[in-house]
Amino acid sequence: MTNFERPSGRTADQLRDVVLETGVTRYAEGSCLAKFGHTHVLCTASWQDNVPGWMRGRGSGWVTGEYGMLPRATHTRGRREAAAGKQSGRTQEIQRLIGRSLRSVVDLNALGENQITIDCDVIQADGGTRTASITGGFVALALACKYLRKEGVIERDPIVKQAAAISVGLFKDTPVLDLDYPEDSGGEGDMNVVMSSDGDFIEIQGTGEERPMTRAEVEEMMRLAEKGCSELFEAQRQAIG
Amino acid sequence: MTNFERPSGRTADQLRDVVLETGVTRYAEGSCLAKFGHTHVLCTASWQDNVPGWMRGRGSGWVTGEYGMLPRATHTRGRREAAAGKQSGRTQEIQRLIGRSLRSVVDLNALGENQITIDCDVIQADGGTRTASITGGFVALALACKYLRKEGVIERDPIVKQAAAISVGLFKDTPVLDLDYPEDSGGEGDMNVVMSSDGDFIEIQGTGEERPMTRAEVEEMMRLAEKGCSELFEAQRQAIG
Amino acid sequence: MTNFERPSGRTADQLRDVVLETGVTRYAEGSCLAKFGHTHVLCTASWQDNVPGWMRGRGSGWVTGEYGMLPRATHTRGRREAAAGKQSGRTQEIQRLIGRSLRSVVDLNALGENQITIDCDVIQADGGTRTASITGGFVALALACKYLRKEGVIERDPIVKQAAAISVGLFKDTPVLDLDYPEDSGGEGDMNVVMSSDGDFIEIQGTGEERPMTRAEVEEMMRLAEKGCSELFEAQRQAIG
Amino acid sequence: MTNFERPSGRTADQLRDVVLETGVTRYAEGSCLAKFGHTHVLCTASWQDNVPGWMRGRGSGWVTGEYGMLPRATHTRGRREAAAGKQSGRTQEIQRLIGRSLRSVVDLNALGENQITIDCDVIQADGGTRTASITGGFVALALACKYLRKEGVIERDPIVKQAAAISVGLFKDTPVLDLDYPEDSGGEGDMNVVMSSDGDFIEIQGTGEERPMTRAEVEEMMRLAEKGCSELFEAQRQAIG
Amino acid sequence: MTNFERPSGRTADQLRDVVLETGVTRYAEGSCLAKFGHTHVLCTASWQDNVPGWMRGRGSGWVTGEYGMLPRATHTRGRREAAAGKQSGRTQEIQRLIGRSLRSVVDLNALGENQITIDCDVIQADGGTRTASITGGFVALALACKYLRKEGVIERDPIVKQAAAISVGLFKDTPVLDLDYPEDSGGEGDMNVVMSSDGDFIEIQGTGEERPMTRAEVEEMMRLAEKGCSELFEAQRQAIG
Amino acid sequence: MTNFERPSGRTADQLRDVVLETGVTRYAEGSCLAKFGHTHVLCTASWQDNVPGWMRGRGSGWVTGEYGMLPRATHTRGRREAAAGKQSGRTQEIQRLIGRSLRSVVDLNALGENQITIDCDVIQADGGTRTASITGGFVALALACKYLRKEGVIERDPIVKQAAAISVGLFKDTPVLDLDYPEDSGGEGDMNVVMSSDGDFIEIQGTGEERPMTRAEVEEMMRLAEKGCSELFEAQRQAIG
Repeated sequence: MTNFERPSGRTADQLRDVVLETGVTRYAEGSCLAKFGHTHVLCTASWQDNVPGWMRGRGSGWVTGEYGMLPRATHTRGRREAAAGKQSGRTQEIQRLIGRSLRSVVDLNALGENQITIDCDVIQADGGTRTASITGGFVALALACKYLRKEGVIERDPIVKQAAAISVGLFKDTPVLDLDYPEDSGGEGDMNVVMSSDGDFIEIQGTGEERPMTRAEVEEMMRLAEKGCSELFEAQRQAIG
Repeated sequence: MTNFERPSGRTADQLRDVVLETGVTRYAEGSCLAKFGHTHVLCTASWQDNVPGWMRGRGSGWVTGEYGMLPRATHTRGRREAAAGKQSGRTQEIQRLIGRSLRSVVDLNALGENQITIDCDVIQADGGTRTASITGGFVALALACKYLRKEGVIERDPIVKQAAAISVGLFKDTPVLDLDYPEDSGGEGDMNVVMSSDGDFIEIQGTGEERPMTRAEVEEMMRLAEKGCSELFEAQRQAIG
Repeated sequence: MTNFERPSGRTADQLRDVVLETGVTRYAEGSCLAKFGHTHVLCTASWQDNVPGWMRGRGSGWVTGEYGMLPRATHTRGRREAAAGKQSGRTQEIQRLIGRSLRSVVDLNALGENQITIDCDVIQADGGTRTASITGGFVALALACKYLRKEGVIERDPIVKQAAAISVGLFKDTPVLDLDYPEDSGGEGDMNVVMSSDGDFIEIQGTGEERPMTRAEVEEMMRLAEKGCSELFEAQRQAIG
Repeated sequence: MTNFERPSGRTADQLRDVVLETGVTRYAEGSCLAKFGHTHVLCTASWQDNVPGWMRGRGSGWVTGEYGMLPRATHTRGRREAAAGKQSGRTQEIQRLIGRSLRSVVDLNALGENQITIDCDVIQADGGTRTASITGGFVALALACKYLRKEGVIERDPIVKQAAAISVGLFKDTPVLDLDYPEDSGGEGDMNVVMSSDGDFIEIQGTGEERPMTRAEVEEMMRLAEKGCSELFEAQRQAIG
Repeated sequence: MTNFERPSGRTADQLRDVVLETGVTRYAEGSCLAKFGHTHVLCTASWQDNVPGWMRGRGSGWVTGEYGMLPRATHTRGRREAAAGKQSGRTQEIQRLIGRSLRSVVDLNALGENQITIDCDVIQADGGTRTASITGGFVALALACKYLRKEGVIERDPIVKQAAAISVGLFKDTPVLDLDYPEDSGGEGDMNVVMSSDGDFIEIQGTGEERPMTRAEVEEMMRLAEKGCSELFEAQRQAIG
Repeated sequence: MTNFERPSGRTADQLRDVVLETGVTRYAEGSCLAKFGHTHVLCTASWQDNVPGWMRGRGSGWVTGEYGMLPRATHTRGRREAAAGKQSGRTQEIQRLIGRSLRSVVDLNALGENQITIDCDVIQADGGTRTASITGGFVALALACKYLRKEGVIERDPIVKQAAAISVGLFKDTPVLDLDYPEDSGGEGDMNVVMSSDGDFIEIQGTGEERPMTRAEVEEMMRLAEKGCSELFEAQRQAIG
């Protein structure tokens, strides 16, 4: 491992530069431009005074996520999903993940029969767009809740704890934190980990891309994720203020 | 007309602050973030080394436009078109307009059998998104052509002249330049005008929203558009350098 | 311009033979087969005792347009849009235009919470199908209103004035009225103009196909449109009786 | 049965007035407006110089049918299938029937690797649209083949025999020929029969709507269909000339 | 006919081995695995306590059918319709047939405003899947009704009589009963016949595939269908108990 | 934990009865009906002599998975995805998982430019359908490879090792193996684990449904998964023979 080197020059347990810029759009109840290195995701939180049909009459609210990627967020232009007429399986998988993750740290009863939609639109992609979406989406959500309480729309804060996410993976057979695109596409496996701010695991999605992963590798990757998320929780707290 | 006043305090023939910021994305061959006041449109130009099926074998290229709006670009969240499974009639109308307008100032033969796609994604909307798309899209296109010539991908500049667009309309029965959202939704009529830098008309799309427009009003609106476009041509030249 | 000649032998400001045949279908509340030379469009007006969801509770009605083309209305067979599974951008653009144009001459309050749908189906196409649709669609609409008043379904006539449309264009660099297909496909530009019977402009949609159009050309085209529409208004009055 | 009476006053074995008007469109290789009383179907035959992918390389051609109904062909306006985004099961069932029926009287080898599409568009409907489509579609097909031979596009006539279709049904428990809409919707059962001009059965599609049909009823209905088709064959021969 | 032989060695009027296995799924109100030789169709009946929108308020119920085929039910894998994004015309035709056939033997008033859906999923196909679907679907339906009466959900039996279906066809110019795949694809014509247990005809769908069928052939095929269905009615009675 | 009890009476680390029945369909190159208690999934492997477009020319093959659920596989009938016109996000997520998992144990070069599709259709569902699909899908795949080698279609065995999958979860705050539906819907979290037969992890997908999971819980769940998979590998070996 002496001559192990990451393409970006980072150490194995080092995040990219993380910036969580808030107040970036004029209309949304909460917004955050999450930058993890060259990965830039615009997250907005939108209040809507009703809930999906199947939830009506329970007195409880809902939080959902939507995800999109601008066609030229990537090296080569991708087809616009609206033109293709449907969202890819990958997009749907990611939006389900965003919604599940954020709901797990929210007291839905505190929302009343209302919904908050977190839109995560990738402006530029360099790996880790789904984890940046969750991390920035939480900030947009928390800011929206803060604003809605100030406006008297909701009475108590629905946010129970923080949620943040990071990717870890195997690159040149070494566990590393926060994969960028060269590591993601050239590595042996990766794992997206969503954590709560009390140190527990909300989601773990690990895949051996080139080969299955050993138990020891999985455990080291979980340890790296714990380190990364604890740094992200701090950045979120500073962004939310 | 003495007590006529625009919501923004502008004079009848005054544009909003226009900023054409270039080089805003890492991967696209050309890019421009076009800001007309609070209307912000991200325009990218993407090179693709083939043409649509019906054009093959002619030795000539193609320029096309695509348009989208982030769900929370507006006051109230709109439905994501990719989730709806189709692009609205309005979206298709706008992308056809962008493509037609930009093709009219390009020598398609100079592209060889290649295509440039101009993606215009509205980050924030306050009226005039289609005209900002064309004006900023031209900048992205011109920058891409400059880059492609420098790289030796194309031999001569396909850009024949500039194209820019502006909206004009009737607000409180007075012709005004560059409508913002309050004027657009509260006015009597509007007209989108696309011009070439030699002072001719590429497209004119005028609609009497609340009432038909008189011939005199149409002519005054065309005059305002000529003034606005000549300012936009200057801004484009400075942006392209 | 001495040796300028139109393929049809018409003078520059001459309409094709226009026939507005009424009562052509057994069931519709109003109907008109609009023939502009070889362009034949069957227009029907259908009464429906409700309005779109977003309009309910306002006490006001709606007029909308739909447009279609039979597969073999043209020289070579086109794909049936129902088989393709969606309406093209062109179709949607045209139906939006028809609806907007006809609504602008109707007092929607006089309809109550009811809707009239104007279906325009092109039986045979030789250029100018959208303008024939609007011109014939107005006749179908007016006849339906007449019938509905006679039957006591509505109390007063919702028709405020007439609407008619015609295309004008540049053919061999000369402004001409009412383009047929050879002129439309071989010309330098075209403009669809919708007018109201008091001489104002409801819609202007001009495109420089081969080259931008000068201001002088645009103005001459508007003058031709005024002449053409005034002849169409007379034909509509005779058809409606 | 003494006081049995059909709504139209026809006898049990009497067709409606049948008119097969030819040459009704300017562009199609063959066309026929088939009128069975108030049911009017515009049938066109379109030549296309290739075959569906799965047929290529066999040296043989194809005949296919498409079917549509104008939205206001019926008493109450139906939704446009192109707007709905798909063809109904009924439409698909009918177009499969048209294609199968016409192919059964054509020598597909005589077409070479080319296709003829028969479009049947219902302008006005009063029962029996599918049988009028087949009967008129055959005329359009035969006229197209005649034209294509004259032009030297095909060498020998692909038409082997005639095909015609008629509906029969049970109305007030009595077998009747050529149901109109009141009989179709108020009867106990119906059967669409497609025959070849040598007196054999190409298709039989019988349904007991209100009750199952007895063997004797089925046989009487087949006898009526034989009578009706023999009159249609004569009308086709006169139309084709 | 001395040397006539069916691929399976059966006589012309012989059914394949028919097994109607009941109680094959844990959740459905009624179920039947219908095996006609190698053709295996899983039929389930599902109770639903509402009716389609257009039926509400009439106090009457509905029975509908749905049909699907597992991708590898056939020799070569077919595309999954859910992946293709739509049901083929063939599928829709078959489900309409199943629904119509079963409704014709049910007293819909006895269901109240409730619906029973019969799902017919082809596990393995060797010809005759639609007739096996109807025959097995009736068993599932009858078992569901028996169960619902026992549970007190409905008060009286909605089943008025039995419905069963069989295919007949021309193979080597000989009418034969219950076609398997080699006969179906290699024969001259086929006919699907749905009968009620009092010996009448619910549906007859006959097609001359290779050539039209004579009147005598059709009548012999109907006779064979009567024989086959009477055996199926007996098998159904034993299955239902 | 003394009074901890699973609804099924199983111990925390006990699988349901697992049956992997082979040779269950007549046409597929390999097939397996995987039963995990009341969960029954029919898995077939289909050989196809080409690869998706984007893989052509690399000399390598592909393995893909498709997943479906019969409408009445569950307590209440679900909508048929083919009728809905699209596959749900959940379905797409599962088929992507099946494909990834099985590809990870196959040497794609040994397939040549050919594809094997694993169809997993749920006949009856009681929790764990995706893990039963992978476990049974592997058996179908291995049997297909065995057959294809015997037939000389492929030269060497593409199977490198076994893949199997099992769910683990938290029920009443206790980690348990192989969740059935009551445990899945009433538990606090679950994790689907795909392993290779050399004891490594191909996929880990864990979700805290009701609350985040502690690190200790995750590790105990991984231990249970290791135990469960080792029993499944043995069952697979016996099934494949």
